[in-house]
Amino acid sequence: MQMGEGVEWGLHCCVTLGWLNDEAPVSIRRLAAWFDLPPEYLKKRLQALAKAGILHSTPGARGGFSLARPPERITMMDVVTALEGPAEAFRCTEIRQRGAGAEGGRFGRPCGISAAMRRAELAWRRELAGRTIADLMADSAPAGERTRRNYARLPG
Amino acid sequence: MQMGEGVEWGLHCCVTLGWLNDEAPVSIRRLAAWFDLPPEYLKKRLQALAKAGILHSTPGARGGFSLARPPERITMMDVVTALEGPAEAFRCTEIRQRGAGAEGGRFGRPCGISAAMRRAELAWRRELAGRTIADLMADSAPAGERTRRNYARLPG
Repeated sequence: MQMGEGVEWGLHCCVTLGWLNDEAPVSIRRLAAWFDLPPEYLKKRLQALAKAGILHSTPGARGGFSLARPPERITMMDVVTALEGPAEAFRCTEIRQRGAGAEGGRFGRPCGISAAMRRAELAWRRELAGRTIADLMADSAPAGERTRRNYARLPG
Repeated sequence: MQMGEGVEWGLHCCVTLGWLNDEAPVSIRRLAAWFDLPPEYLKKRLQALAKAGILHSTPGARGGFSLARPPERITMMDVVTALEGPAEAFRCTEIRQRGAGAEGGRFGRPCGISAAMRRAELAWRRELAGRTIADLMADSAPAGERTRRNYARLPG
């Protein structure tokens, strides 16, 4: 079970756009150069974040991406859900209700296996929902200073 | 991000083998009929559980699978890890150290994004590691009685 690489890209771009708020919008070309990422693939991921209302996309030659709301109001869960979809990782297909084992069974209650998998996934979601882009920015303040310094030096 | 269907199959087979402990080993043909699953695909999953020391595989015409240790000592995490591998779902590729943004940076500490993703994954693992096959059996005792009853009726 693996997340797509877009999750790392998306989270780092959100943190960077938080730090570069005064310079935004930041072009896709610059964001790609920032992390040495393929521009076309990165663009697809950032468009997904824009569609989810996390980023704001400004069109045109001087356009690019900016945070669509304050970094305190964007959780890691928001970003992961926008990029990986809202589906739970575990899919219950109710095999307990199929085949020779199911004969004479009554299946009113949710399956204990499915319920336990859901509890674990909720614990994971709770952690990610409790941590915002602002928290991540605060955790690495020196990187924020470096980001603003390096951005000012970037060729136009 | 999706788990393979084998996780649902593997967990249900472990619970069923716990209930059918007195009848084990249970043939792959019977386990497949039990849940109406494709025998060859199911066999691959159960072999992975045997390789991980969760199931015991008995060869021969009267062979099949049984739990390799008491159900109190098999956690849901054991089963998920055996089927999905031990890798974390989030892969940090340290893009923070690449490109124009990284210039002049020092990257001693683990990345805050990676650390937060790991904390969330640990919360998920902790839940699954705290729940055993014996717990799942106890949760649905009526299904255990039905399982033993239906198994006794199964054609040879």
